[in-house]
Amino acid sequence: MKVRVLVSPKQGILDPQGIAVRGSLEQLGFSVSDVRVGRLVDLDIETSDESQARQMAEAMCDKLLANSLIESYEIQVRQDG
Amino acid sequence: MKVRVLVSPKQGILDPQGIAVRGSLEQLGFSVSDVRVGRLVDLDIETSDESQARQMAEAMCDKLLANSLIESYEIQVRQDG
Repeated sequence: MKVRVLVSPKQGILDPQGIAVRGSLEQLGFSVSDVRVGRLVDLDIETSDESQARQMAEAMCDKLLANSLIESYEIQVRQDG
Repeated sequence: MKVRVLVSPKQGILDPQGIAVRGSLEQLGFSVSDVRVGRLVDLDIETSDESQARQMAEAMCDKLLANSLIESYEIQVRQDG
């Protein structure tokens, strides 16, 4: 089952990568008031049960994919195809 | 206007980060058949027009946020609030 995990820095946490990207965008002439950079992880989990896939993805986030002190994550279970 | 940009490695392009994450997940006991790692960029673009926001985000992707040779991107314009 295909699962997408979106990991982004929590509100209030300094995001140096976002600040750097914002600076570069402004140098290129774009007006942006805020930029936050996170990670996107697309997984193909070996189960056909949606709630089990979600549970496994949560466990993966807690153990490896996200640093829960400074990052929040969102799990999207996607239809195969 | 809040815009989310999802950048991921194109199909067929080697993704060493994804391979590394997959290896770590398997060592932790998770069964995953494929992992691809990309970037997530949340932008607050200074316009209130949705199509203009999308256009600007596309220009930012082409110039800075994505490497179009090896990465594809998806733009999601989000409601403020």
